[in-house]
Amino acid sequence: MKFRLGIIGTGGMGSGHLRNIMNRLTDDIQITALCDIEPEHMLRHKHYFTENEVKFFENSNDLIHSGLVDGVLIATPHYDHPTISIEAFKAGLHVFCEKPAGVYTKKVREMNEAAKKAGTTFQVNFVMRATAPFIKIKELIDAGEIGTPRRLTWIITNWYRTQNYYNAGGWRATWGGEGGGTLLNQNPHQLDLVQWFVGIPKRVRGFCYFGKRRDVEIEDEATIYMEYENGLTATYITCVSEFPGTNRLEIAGNKGKIVWENDKITLWRSNITEEEFNATTDTAAGPIPMEVEEFEIKADIDLCQAKMVKNWVDAARYGTPLISPGFEGINSLSISNAAYLSTWTDDWVELPIDEDKFLEELNKRIETSTFVKKDVTDKVVDASSTYTKS
Amino acid sequence: MKFRLGIIGTGGMGSGHLRNIMNRLTDDIQITALCDIEPEHMLRHKHYFTENEVKFFENSNDLIHSGLVDGVLIATPHYDHPTISIEAFKAGLHVFCEKPAGVYTKKVREMNEAAKKAGTTFQVNFVMRATAPFIKIKELIDAGEIGTPRRLTWIITNWYRTQNYYNAGGWRATWGGEGGGTLLNQNPHQLDLVQWFVGIPKRVRGFCYFGKRRDVEIEDEATIYMEYENGLTATYITCVSEFPGTNRLEIAGNKGKIVWENDKITLWRSNITEEEFNATTDTAAGPIPMEVEEFEIKADIDLCQAKMVKNWVDAARYGTPLISPGFEGINSLSISNAAYLSTWTDDWVELPIDEDKFLEELNKRIETSTFVKKDVTDKVVDASSTYTKS
Repeated sequence: MKFRLGIIGTGGMGSGHLRNIMNRLTDDIQITALCDIEPEHMLRHKHYFTENEVKFFENSNDLIHSGLVDGVLIATPHYDHPTISIEAFKAGLHVFCEKPAGVYTKKVREMNEAAKKAGTTFQVNFVMRATAPFIKIKELIDAGEIGTPRRLTWIITNWYRTQNYYNAGGWRATWGGEGGGTLLNQNPHQLDLVQWFVGIPKRVRGFCYFGKRRDVEIEDEATIYMEYENGLTATYITCVSEFPGTNRLEIAGNKGKIVWENDKITLWRSNITEEEFNATTDTAAGPIPMEVEEFEIKADIDLCQAKMVKNWVDAARYGTPLISPGFEGINSLSISNAAYLSTWTDDWVELPIDEDKFLEELNKRIETSTFVKKDVTDKVVDASSTYTKS
Repeated sequence: MKFRLGIIGTGGMGSGHLRNIMNRLTDDIQITALCDIEPEHMLRHKHYFTENEVKFFENSNDLIHSGLVDGVLIATPHYDHPTISIEAFKAGLHVFCEKPAGVYTKKVREMNEAAKKAGTTFQVNFVMRATAPFIKIKELIDAGEIGTPRRLTWIITNWYRTQNYYNAGGWRATWGGEGGGTLLNQNPHQLDLVQWFVGIPKRVRGFCYFGKRRDVEIEDEATIYMEYENGLTATYITCVSEFPGTNRLEIAGNKGKIVWENDKITLWRSNITEEEFNATTDTAAGPIPMEVEEFEIKADIDLCQAKMVKNWVDAARYGTPLISPGFEGINSLSISNAAYLSTWTDDWVELPIDEDKFLEELNKRIETSTFVKKDVTDKVVDASSTYTKS
């Protein structure tokens, strides 16, 4: 028997998942229900189904309680991720939720509690974890190839987005509609990888710029500086208005270094730790003997999107370990929430963050918003191809 | 007639200059006097001279007022750079001073005033400005090839220095002796290039770590975040305990991008600005049409060291424009002073910095220092080769 899936939100990412599932995963999964508050979004996908195969809903609760689905895939605007997930967990459904897990961690914590109570299978779609280059990097770190990580630097300024992108769709680019900018929309992937590779920082200093080079309310540029309990320091630099941007990750440890860029991982590794070398050397400046190895590995995001859904269904049916357990969605959100709060308060923010304070500050911005979107278009703009490049 | 030169400080950099001058520049320059508080430093170079050619001094004032020199090359510990320079300017001499210009900007401002009053030729040895790759980058920026710079990122973590390096020589690695750590010793070169390329920031947030992975009093790791009046943001990341480090510079503008690493400059350039593209595009995420060009250019630091001295002598004699006018030495020092002050006060520091406050904070650290150097050796450790790699 196939896994009966309902998709809630069939616009951008939802329609991508739908195509992927229909084209690649039909042996395992049967889409039995679709939901969108804009009925014409669903109708676009009609050629995939006969009328009696799939039921269309305009209200997510109706889909959740229809008895037609074993699990739901949620690809709505960010604010709705936790509320719809919670409803689905209450109904005993499995949940596959798009990133980010939500807009603020207080709500995502409720979502995690609901998931725990339900005991069903919960995945947040951090698809980058399923891609070959990042699997390899995770393996190298976990195998101790670079020793204890001491520095992480990620320059990811190739999330180029135009004003046209922000004008399309009323919910984007406002505190009330989207709840954040590029840290919440494009960068959750990389922020999740940061915490997957080296854990959660103990404190964060954020430098976010709101509406700097786009006519938006939220941040279009950000640098995040992070300190970790074990001495690791990390810098994360992102931007939507730079072309051609850079996408380069460096993780330096006490036994070597990983650099990833342009589909290539370069690994330097030593047999001894920097501490051991430093304690015994007569030299002023090394060198520490190192081996270098290169791995050319491309990511296929489309394939991996299907892999993420398949993995979730397999986890629900056979107990396969999840690639991106939903409970971990709060981690990357903690970092971006901390970066906002740090910018707003112009100070360090300790983690775990003061969730009430964050929500209060966010609500302040929603309530006092005077931002009026100009030239809002209803057309769907396609930036999905930019998710596939490395 | 040759330019009569006195060298003050004949240990590390001073002895390098001496060798360079004797080997490459003997047609233009005659070394007539040497000065070192450790007489045996000078004696090492005795094979270059006959006794009556060069006079040896133990006190810099005696050399300055000897009537034997037209100019002095100063390569003493940092604190003495401005004080000796000021004395030389008062005597009407030309001054070639090693970097950094000094330890704190208040004193360097006095040095600059003395230089102005003297009207003699004043160069600070920011030798990187004489190297082919950085000349090229400066030309590209000044020619508008990348438009207005918006982001600068420099990861320069390949200033590896061992405990052995810090143990050699009593003046290193303390607030009282050296006045700072890697930002004051190794990084002035790159901090100078930052301000040469994109100017001086309006405010700085420093994250310096003092004695983090070396038994020293000063910083062995630092990240500096900088904001500029025109919206440019810059991140500078350095460290002495990472191996193999990275040395990569990125400057992104509104018409293109420069990346420099491993003796290669990559230039992306567009015919239109990002603002123009953004205002007119129907796309969500570009691309902006770009040309890419690569330049393989190596730096020869040793040759350039000679070039810097020659340029200074030519400037003094024939009015040749200086490569690194001494008055500009205060700029990079402003950035490192600001980074310290920001770390000490755990807050932003506006530029120009509050020079009295900085000095007060520095003196506090000197006065309350309880740091005792262990295993101090007198041997000269040679890290000069690390200045030649890119």
